[in-house]
Amino acid sequence: MTTLWKNRYAQRLQRMGRSVIRELLKYTEQPDLISFAGGLPAPELFPIERAREAAARILTTNGVHALQYGPTEGYVPLREYIVQRMCRYGIHAKAENVLITNGSQQALDLIGKLLLNPGDRVLVEEPTYLGALQAWNAYQAEYLPVPGDDDGLRVELLEATLRHGPKFMYVLPNFQNPGGTTLPIERRLEIVRLSHKYGIPIVEDDPYGALRFEGEHLPPLVALDSDFQTRAGLESHGYMEGNVIYLGTFSKTLAPGLRLGWVVAPVEVVEQLVMAKQGVDLHTSTFNQMLAWEMVKDGFMDEHIRVIRRVYGERRNVMLAALERYFPEGCSWTRPEGGLFLWTRVPEWIDTAELLKEAVKHKVAYVPGFAFYTEPGRGRNTMRLNFSNARPAQIEEGIRRLGELLKQVIAARR
Amino acid sequence: MTTLWKNRYAQRLQRMGRSVIRELLKYTEQPDLISFAGGLPAPELFPIERAREAAARILTTNGVHALQYGPTEGYVPLREYIVQRMCRYGIHAKAENVLITNGSQQALDLIGKLLLNPGDRVLVEEPTYLGALQAWNAYQAEYLPVPGDDDGLRVELLEATLRHGPKFMYVLPNFQNPGGTTLPIERRLEIVRLSHKYGIPIVEDDPYGALRFEGEHLPPLVALDSDFQTRAGLESHGYMEGNVIYLGTFSKTLAPGLRLGWVVAPVEVVEQLVMAKQGVDLHTSTFNQMLAWEMVKDGFMDEHIRVIRRVYGERRNVMLAALERYFPEGCSWTRPEGGLFLWTRVPEWIDTAELLKEAVKHKVAYVPGFAFYTEPGRGRNTMRLNFSNARPAQIEEGIRRLGELLKQVIAARR
Repeated sequence: MTTLWKNRYAQRLQRMGRSVIRELLKYTEQPDLISFAGGLPAPELFPIERAREAAARILTTNGVHALQYGPTEGYVPLREYIVQRMCRYGIHAKAENVLITNGSQQALDLIGKLLLNPGDRVLVEEPTYLGALQAWNAYQAEYLPVPGDDDGLRVELLEATLRHGPKFMYVLPNFQNPGGTTLPIERRLEIVRLSHKYGIPIVEDDPYGALRFEGEHLPPLVALDSDFQTRAGLESHGYMEGNVIYLGTFSKTLAPGLRLGWVVAPVEVVEQLVMAKQGVDLHTSTFNQMLAWEMVKDGFMDEHIRVIRRVYGERRNVMLAALERYFPEGCSWTRPEGGLFLWTRVPEWIDTAELLKEAVKHKVAYVPGFAFYTEPGRGRNTMRLNFSNARPAQIEEGIRRLGELLKQVIAARR
Repeated sequence: MTTLWKNRYAQRLQRMGRSVIRELLKYTEQPDLISFAGGLPAPELFPIERAREAAARILTTNGVHALQYGPTEGYVPLREYIVQRMCRYGIHAKAENVLITNGSQQALDLIGKLLLNPGDRVLVEEPTYLGALQAWNAYQAEYLPVPGDDDGLRVELLEATLRHGPKFMYVLPNFQNPGGTTLPIERRLEIVRLSHKYGIPIVEDDPYGALRFEGEHLPPLVALDSDFQTRAGLESHGYMEGNVIYLGTFSKTLAPGLRLGWVVAPVEVVEQLVMAKQGVDLHTSTFNQMLAWEMVKDGFMDEHIRVIRRVYGERRNVMLAALERYFPEGCSWTRPEGGLFLWTRVPEWIDTAELLKEAVKHKVAYVPGFAFYTEPGRGRNTMRLNFSNARPAQIEEGIRRLGELLKQVIAARR
């Protein structure tokens, strides 16, 4: 009877894009392998003790609430906390602008569910976050890629693409995944301007914004959008009535295992996302939301983020120095000012997906860059390197192994 | 700029069915109101102390694992535990047949994502679980309703409907939501037989199966399907290669606030659900999965379920006795052998949605039955009553209030 299911699933499965990456990464699970492939935070920085205390407090004083069903919108004190955090970034929201999601991945899915009909087009920077493509492939989205450079999305190419009428633009302004690039203020302003000119909304994905090691914080698109409307003298509907859906997450600051993210959006958008989420999973774990709130409510987050920034900044430095030392001529890489990833180009004729098979034998792994492109064949000589998860000595050693391999491959060709 | 979002969302929103229920239930949040409306477990039975101990143990011994990203399929020890539990019900699965979901609501969404194209038809018992309709409305499903009676789905009407080619049948065999009905063995066997005859798979939703107060346990459809294949001499592909996707949950036995459910299905189906879930939210909270496993691993569940059964059985008895005492002539109700709900019919000319507005003034609430039907206009004189959440004295008092109101309404008509 297996054919019963096979037949029914085949068509849809193709659309959903069985991940080549998934297959490749199976080989990276050897214990002595140094992996730059995942997007995992440094586990030694997890606030475990704090989580233990918070869990005990909640289950001592408020267990009935923590274990019961809760509202789809999320736990009100956590939504209010997010409002406060957002305020620092110039985002003037209220609790009703905030929806709690199961990590920001769920926000991407809910946005697809609400906005995308089959064949609808999404404007994306290329390369872009693989998980967004996975979420929207399920809704049969098409993509309008706009190339990025070392400063992110090339806005001078944006207008021509907007004329093709995408449903929305998907932008990661800070320490982009996978590029590690950051949009300068001029590019941000231009994106917002064009959003209004063409009436195309923006999905702003900002998982790493708090993790800046150097340089100055830049305002998010959602804040610039609000300013733009004020300056343009557009009718004010109060806060958060603009063109941007902003996505944040606790995965990179608190812990990914709690699966907690959030959306900040106009009230009417939040209401509709809530309707969608109700059908999807009723609500996000009450216990986890209360746990996060209990962990952060007394100002712990600032102190904790300072530690993460310092450690990740050091690891980035170690990786940059090792790349300089061990990688052969003809390679180049980005120099991220924050986040978890940097992006490397190797000589054009090297296929990093093929190279990965060899790299794994040398006990080192990365994600081949092609995975972050919307069409096959592009980005074949690129790779994404994560610097948050491995310790400095491992980073040094892993980059050494990868550099040696590249040198061997180049020498063998001569 | 609000119109920007409005325009884009309007079409899709309609399909997703802004819930009338949601609006109605807003009025039920007064503190002194006795609500039979929700599907909430009895909070005083939550194993809070056990959760507290389990959380402390996990975060003392294995915090790094609990707070990190995890596999999409779920936490292996929990999947293996589910395999053992399922075995008692005659379901011979392996860990690779099990996917952990965010409550079984997420399983309904993932199944829709995988199986349903716009306009695809789903065969449902009528009335049926509102949340399933909400999940599949988002995929633009159409419904082929088959009426139920006091023994659940009327299988003598099934064959004619199967000829219309539904994508799958959605069945709740035990203590159905909202009807409280249980399918007798003969009906179960006939459903499985027809599933094979017409090549139409079954989604078996079993959130309450463990909560039987009286009568004998009946085998789930997934087990009967396996037997059917063996008897029919169909080629064996090993365990779990059949026609049924089975859904279970910890929400009614452990705690809904953890958002933990599971799917048991053929391996190829699980693999595809995993691909879908990856794009939807990467995975279910590692911490919550470890917490559930830590709570149940030493046999706690059996003891705990015995307590729940006893308490819910008592509450059902109180509700049945109160209905007998206070409800006027011309009303009838089901007598569930387990679960959380019973189903009541009032005289044909009474609209329970209208009546609810009055009921709320009398400080009592329920869900009007129309919400569980696929087409407007049906089931207007029915209501779903939950007996798990309120305490016995409240149940008695709430049914008294509702009975008095019904008598007033009937008297006023004469």
